[in-house]
Amino acid sequence: MFEQIFLLKNSKLFLILKVNLKTQMNRICELFNIKYPIVQGGMVWCSGWRLASAVSNAGGLGLIGAGSMNPELLREHIQKTKSATDKPFGVNIPLLFSEAEAMMKVIIDENVKVVFTSAGNPAAWTKILQENGIKVAHVVANTKFAKKAEDAGVDALVAEGFEAGGHNGREETTTLTLIPHVRQIVDIPLIAAGGIATGRGMLAAMALGADGVQMGTRFVAAEESSAHQNFKNEIVKTIEGSTYFAMKKLFPVRLIKNEFCQRIIQAEIEGKNKETISELLGRGRAKQGMFDGDISEGELEIGQISALIQDIKPVREIIEEVIKEYHMALKNLTRENFQF
Amino acid sequence: MFEQIFLLKNSKLFLILKVNLKTQMNRICELFNIKYPIVQGGMVWCSGWRLASAVSNAGGLGLIGAGSMNPELLREHIQKTKSATDKPFGVNIPLLFSEAEAMMKVIIDENVKVVFTSAGNPAAWTKILQENGIKVAHVVANTKFAKKAEDAGVDALVAEGFEAGGHNGREETTTLTLIPHVRQIVDIPLIAAGGIATGRGMLAAMALGADGVQMGTRFVAAEESSAHQNFKNEIVKTIEGSTYFAMKKLFPVRLIKNEFCQRIIQAEIEGKNKETISELLGRGRAKQGMFDGDISEGELEIGQISALIQDIKPVREIIEEVIKEYHMALKNLTRENFQF
Repeated sequence: MFEQIFLLKNSKLFLILKVNLKTQMNRICELFNIKYPIVQGGMVWCSGWRLASAVSNAGGLGLIGAGSMNPELLREHIQKTKSATDKPFGVNIPLLFSEAEAMMKVIIDENVKVVFTSAGNPAAWTKILQENGIKVAHVVANTKFAKKAEDAGVDALVAEGFEAGGHNGREETTTLTLIPHVRQIVDIPLIAAGGIATGRGMLAAMALGADGVQMGTRFVAAEESSAHQNFKNEIVKTIEGSTYFAMKKLFPVRLIKNEFCQRIIQAEIEGKNKETISELLGRGRAKQGMFDGDISEGELEIGQISALIQDIKPVREIIEEVIKEYHMALKNLTRENFQF
Repeated sequence: MFEQIFLLKNSKLFLILKVNLKTQMNRICELFNIKYPIVQGGMVWCSGWRLASAVSNAGGLGLIGAGSMNPELLREHIQKTKSATDKPFGVNIPLLFSEAEAMMKVIIDENVKVVFTSAGNPAAWTKILQENGIKVAHVVANTKFAKKAEDAGVDALVAEGFEAGGHNGREETTTLTLIPHVRQIVDIPLIAAGGIATGRGMLAAMALGADGVQMGTRFVAAEESSAHQNFKNEIVKTIEGSTYFAMKKLFPVRLIKNEFCQRIIQAEIEGKNKETISELLGRGRAKQGMFDGDISEGELEIGQISALIQDIKPVREIIEEVIKEYHMALKNLTRENFQF
């Protein structure tokens, strides 16, 4: 913000600072043409057009979570998002998804401008999407895949730590460790995810070298998310230790420790194999929990930071609070005087 | 640092800021009378008088790790530390330690001014130590014990996240989640630990609401630590995913995944019980690994942030680098212009 500092001697309480007009434009804001470098994580069953458009309208980047949609439902959500906002928005799509190809056709066809990919090889779709004028970000949970994604030519990277809800890395690398590490090895714009729900969390992520943040859990507990009200209420009830990093033998995910999750934990303690865990999981539990509201037998995917969330409120209030707290915390940091 | 901002119209490139002379004195620096709010974690086999005095001489707070000493050896290390520095230093002592009472007598007798307690009930010793003019900090890994420690009257708190080496909480709460949570519920000075080895990490911790940081792993790889050279070399070799949060059925600890650790991992995957894990562990493995340098069969306790450490160097250089990076990262944060 300032380039040089001159101390004025004729007035002992005043300083004059030369303004550097070439302040650093935030790279995430620039890349996606948004006001705040806050991305709403694309999440199964929780992030449809209502949440995505609310986030985009409030100055962040809203993402439709395609992971729990079929191509036609995705098309409907894209069209509804376009009607609800004239701001940039995107789609998050897991590349291992069986209908990924049909999804991509819908995305290109509907002229979506931003795609976040995850769970798969970024080399498969990045160039094709970019040739269609689409900005591509890829989600990783470790440094190895961060490098691979950069090599595949993605425009930005989401690095997601162990504390995140959803599907996490087996290395269990936390956001505090992952972000500076990824920052060391890649040059492209970097979005931190996992454990961020507040302005202080956002500031911490930026301090570590991220250019922006992705928040999932905080937005699940937004009024506009399509999570079932029962699930939202459970998030508010969680305290520290309420979540568990489960199913490492299958596809690791962080869950609220409800009755279903306790059975998984018990099976894991007993060393049960992949097949037994898979049987216990069964099918359709994510929808059963997050969308249909069965809080004891459904799969409730959520981040560890859920313990900090005390209320369900509109997206606009969430984003305003985060930005306000960010600036307050930054101001407090500059006041600490051990530095002189 | 600044209280108010006035834009001067007669010179378009200048701003005038009113200086707030009442900047905030850092509470950790004030409490322990040190230059930088950097505490060196007290660690078994690694932190004797040489490391503790080097950290104190460089402006941080050095701690003698009593966990791997008997009372007489502790006395010797205290006396040597006193000879090597005239700056404040302390002793870290696990309260569950069988010789804790004899240790405390030595500490009081030798007129030590700072004690960090861990692994036990802080109510047991806090008042007695304070009556002897000793400042007491207590190490916790969750919010429940943070509150208990504050209630016991400790002067400061160390909150240590999942990424830490040494003995961690079963809740697996990461530093990014733990610090803002503990900050919400306690008012006393707060030291963040786990995953911090750099200036950026320190800045992130302060952004989350900590008043200072405790670093362990970074100081194990200092020239002055009493860790075996083989162990220090292993730390430099670690990459992301090289450590594992092991022995949850006993007393959880983060280890480098060497041959010994792989056997523990295998036993845990197979669901082996506490007794089997305990048998695999045996006795004396921490000394065997960390002090005697058996890098394949010893227990090598280390934090996840070890992956970021590229060199072994003197404490003074480590601390200078951390402080320099802290200020550079803070300056960069104030240049981000999405805030306007």
